[in-house]
Amino acid sequence: MRCENLTPFIVMDIVREAAKYDDAIHFEIGQPDIAPSPKVLQAICNNANQSMYTESLGLKPLREKIAKYYYDTYKVQILPTQIVLTPGTSGAFILAYSLALSKGEILGLSDPSYPCYKNVAQVLDIEPKFIEISKKDSYQLTPLHVKNHKLHALQISSPSNPTGNLYSPQNLKDLIFTCKQKGIAFISDELYHGLTYDKKACSALEFDDEVYVINGFSKYFCMPGFRLGWIIVPKSKVREAEILAQNLFICPSTLSQYAALEAFDANYLQQVQKSFKERRDALYEALVPLFDIDAKPEGAFYLWADISKYSNDGVEFARKMLEEIHVAVTPGVDFGSKKHYVRFAYTREIPHMLEGVKRIKKWLGR
Amino acid sequence: MRCENLTPFIVMDIVREAAKYDDAIHFEIGQPDIAPSPKVLQAICNNANQSMYTESLGLKPLREKIAKYYYDTYKVQILPTQIVLTPGTSGAFILAYSLALSKGEILGLSDPSYPCYKNVAQVLDIEPKFIEISKKDSYQLTPLHVKNHKLHALQISSPSNPTGNLYSPQNLKDLIFTCKQKGIAFISDELYHGLTYDKKACSALEFDDEVYVINGFSKYFCMPGFRLGWIIVPKSKVREAEILAQNLFICPSTLSQYAALEAFDANYLQQVQKSFKERRDALYEALVPLFDIDAKPEGAFYLWADISKYSNDGVEFARKMLEEIHVAVTPGVDFGSKKHYVRFAYTREIPHMLEGVKRIKKWLGR
Repeated sequence: MRCENLTPFIVMDIVREAAKYDDAIHFEIGQPDIAPSPKVLQAICNNANQSMYTESLGLKPLREKIAKYYYDTYKVQILPTQIVLTPGTSGAFILAYSLALSKGEILGLSDPSYPCYKNVAQVLDIEPKFIEISKKDSYQLTPLHVKNHKLHALQISSPSNPTGNLYSPQNLKDLIFTCKQKGIAFISDELYHGLTYDKKACSALEFDDEVYVINGFSKYFCMPGFRLGWIIVPKSKVREAEILAQNLFICPSTLSQYAALEAFDANYLQQVQKSFKERRDALYEALVPLFDIDAKPEGAFYLWADISKYSNDGVEFARKMLEEIHVAVTPGVDFGSKKHYVRFAYTREIPHMLEGVKRIKKWLGR
Repeated sequence: MRCENLTPFIVMDIVREAAKYDDAIHFEIGQPDIAPSPKVLQAICNNANQSMYTESLGLKPLREKIAKYYYDTYKVQILPTQIVLTPGTSGAFILAYSLALSKGEILGLSDPSYPCYKNVAQVLDIEPKFIEISKKDSYQLTPLHVKNHKLHALQISSPSNPTGNLYSPQNLKDLIFTCKQKGIAFISDELYHGLTYDKKACSALEFDDEVYVINGFSKYFCMPGFRLGWIIVPKSKVREAEILAQNLFICPSTLSQYAALEAFDANYLQQVQKSFKERRDALYEALVPLFDIDAKPEGAFYLWADISKYSNDGVEFARKMLEEIHVAVTPGVDFGSKKHYVRFAYTREIPHMLEGVKRIKKWLGR
């Protein structure tokens, strides 16, 4: 059966459980608590009467703004027609896999990685192939990993969920080159770009123009509920992508698209980046004495904590922590095979997080 | 390859072409030109700050309202947990097919039918099996059709796109019963409910509680750009549906969901129904002298016109009509094998439509 190997997106179940406690501390869900830019909120009221469908690729002025953003940020030139606006990056994964992979083909994913990747693949009868990454390789897939596996496509995310690591420019370049040589489609999830704290992230498009790049407005732009993502497809795939978008989505929310026209608000985005950097620094410093943390996260808003000195079962650890001290985290198995890890999201204000750490410290008897 | 049999959703391409002419007459696209209820528009501004994800099933109060709507309208009792809010009915098809069909299984569809059905099926490696319907069977699939084919699921729409016909209560009941006996999952697209002009439409849920029912806010509620649909799943499929929604969508647009809380505005909806009935009457009367129309449409906002006395090629007919007199219609082949039909959507005001008919009349030399 199509759905028998699907795993629940555990974090969504934890969100529901955590909502039962008024005093819960939230490290579970990967959504910013910061409001979108005031310009975005204003645009909602100004465009409330925009109730019709848009083009299936999405509003042309928005695709033009995104193309300009790529030029300004990465110095890459893409055509607005290569961009498809999608219902969240969720929709972008469906498009990417449908375009790049036929039934029965194999998608390489890192273990750990964002849980929806494998599940979306399975719904589309694509076989996910997990490749273990760890502290040893700085949580990056490398050309060596690719050489050892038969793959039809490879997906990475950088900065990554759940580890917060960043691919080095050289490794990203080498990885894309190796994939290209072997005829492996390359899919780069760049949803956390903008949220990097020490170095700037490179786009896969800087190294090759035949990759699939996925991004969206849910994280850096603080617009998760708008459900608006995008995919940049190779020029040869534009028409096919458009046909898929027509049939699978018609278009993403029109109002979200109008609001997103105001999302490229540089001053606001700078503040967002600054807030998350402060939160990362605060949470990292507070958790280091309690858990083994393989690396200080360089981006996104996650911290990947090894809990093996307390437990080898992250699910039970997270369940008990939520039940006993109302602190919600996501067990590592939501992202792959790592049972002795949990993921902390630093998406709330520092005092809220520090209250959580205080409870954890006491609970662990430290 | 996954996408090689996909057909473009032709109407979306025609929309783009028609947009080039300032004086175009629009019979092509199936979206109401009527604004949503003023209460919905007000709710947008009031909830502009709702930027976070919702539960994957969607806002509970909205699911409760939908459950109440089913009780009020059809006297059927469904649980709010059986309802999944989706990114348009497009998302609901993806869920329905994923839940009901494994790869390689067969989905029965009428010829003609909404083009996205077959394309979504193909993306999911499901085989669409077309069953021809015509004037002779009042454009309804019947138990006899089902008995003659090996199917794993059957999808109908009533009132239907593109013919506007309505399934009779007795035939719908018999069809559902036959499918149930043969172990064929039954999927009922009820998106045009509310837009019926002579009789009320029955929901498949009135006859069986293990069917999949799809509906949404795009037509009757005049909120196409909100991209908000829903699916009602059998109780045994609730958890699986939730897991799929988590992975494929996270959730539909939060703001669209808040706005939809105000969509069940009885007075407004009565006006919408009345407007479309007047438009149907006007367009039907104006077109009957020009085309062979198999039946006066009983619902939705489409009119299915046989053009064989002028042409056997609806694509060429539609192309020339758009180019020469700037009147846009959708060729029948968008919906199946019927080359000598075109579809008129009566989604614009009567004077606009009558101007179109005047041009067509002159163009045809009638």
